[in-house]
Amino acid sequence: MSGQNDLDNLIEMMAKLPGLGPRSARRAVLHMIKKRALVLMPLSDALARVAETARECLNCGNVGTTDLCEICQSEKRANGELCIVEDVADLWAMERAGVFKGRYHVLGGTLSALDAVGPEELRIPKLIDRVTSEEISEVILALNATVDGQTTAHYIADQIEHRVKVTSLAQGVPIGGELDYLDDGTIGAALRARKSI
Amino acid sequence: MSGQNDLDNLIEMMAKLPGLGPRSARRAVLHMIKKRALVLMPLSDALARVAETARECLNCGNVGTTDLCEICQSEKRANGELCIVEDVADLWAMERAGVFKGRYHVLGGTLSALDAVGPEELRIPKLIDRVTSEEISEVILALNATVDGQTTAHYIADQIEHRVKVTSLAQGVPIGGELDYLDDGTIGAALRARKSI
Repeated sequence: MSGQNDLDNLIEMMAKLPGLGPRSARRAVLHMIKKRALVLMPLSDALARVAETARECLNCGNVGTTDLCEICQSEKRANGELCIVEDVADLWAMERAGVFKGRYHVLGGTLSALDAVGPEELRIPKLIDRVTSEEISEVILALNATVDGQTTAHYIADQIEHRVKVTSLAQGVPIGGELDYLDDGTIGAALRARKSI
Repeated sequence: MSGQNDLDNLIEMMAKLPGLGPRSARRAVLHMIKKRALVLMPLSDALARVAETARECLNCGNVGTTDLCEICQSEKRANGELCIVEDVADLWAMERAGVFKGRYHVLGGTLSALDAVGPEELRIPKLIDRVTSEEISEVILALNATVDGQTTAHYIADQIEHRVKVTSLAQGVPIGGELDYLDDGTIGAALRARKSI
């Protein structure tokens, strides 16, 4: 009977989303069906709308519904500062912090010899293009503090530091962090980068 | 800009599903957008199909896409045995176990004086109706081993045990369970229900 298949199909697809498994997918689907008007219909509409309109910004790689994303279009953002992030999720994290007022460039990953990801696979040529053509005064590397992230940061710095000032996020003790629970590398970085009060 | 709102809206709705929060909703939505053809479009279609067709079985309360669910329609299920469960999720759990070949009746909750849930709010009148009109030889109470579940089980047994044999799931040590990790109540129940080998 096709009906049961529709349900099983939906549960199977939900179960493949990151952070969900078969059990939570079943729970979510049952919850949706029970609250048909309040949850299922609006969610279905929202998903259909996003499926129709979501696209990558041609300039920075952010996700939006227009060829140029909100941030690239905004008149209020400072033109001079360009923040480089690995992923759209990182861009969102920066935006939630709400302290950066410039524009972004999303690489779409990190360089990786193992996975055969070179500069051409990322949005690095476009970045070099932007640094040349736009009025950029500072490029801020906000890549993850992982080996691949830092390799990528060094590669990008090499490519553009003769044209523009390149900085990276400070490393140190997180706000609210307790020394006892921090790894040795972070403590070492925080000590090396110590400031006079 | 309406585009960003569509995305935020979708994330907000996903975040309200049981088992998901803002962070996992953002991750899931980004994953969907990145895999537009492979994940987003099929999921959107599946959700729209379920939103259109999902309904409660008029007979047993199971979820399906026809007025009578697959199990109620099936010729292969034994007519004589009726398994009473609280919720569709419990019915699915029984079906996954794959040992019960009869039919089901979903109550849609448990009696609860605190939440003002009486027999009329559940599917209990319909159950009594089924016991009278269908050829039922045994009613198996598969309600949760909680206070409300057991109260409901006693109430139902009171109502129908003069017409039909009423049984309930055995209580005892779960398969693979270690005594050291079991609660006292379960060990007590298992001891009282001990069997000769």
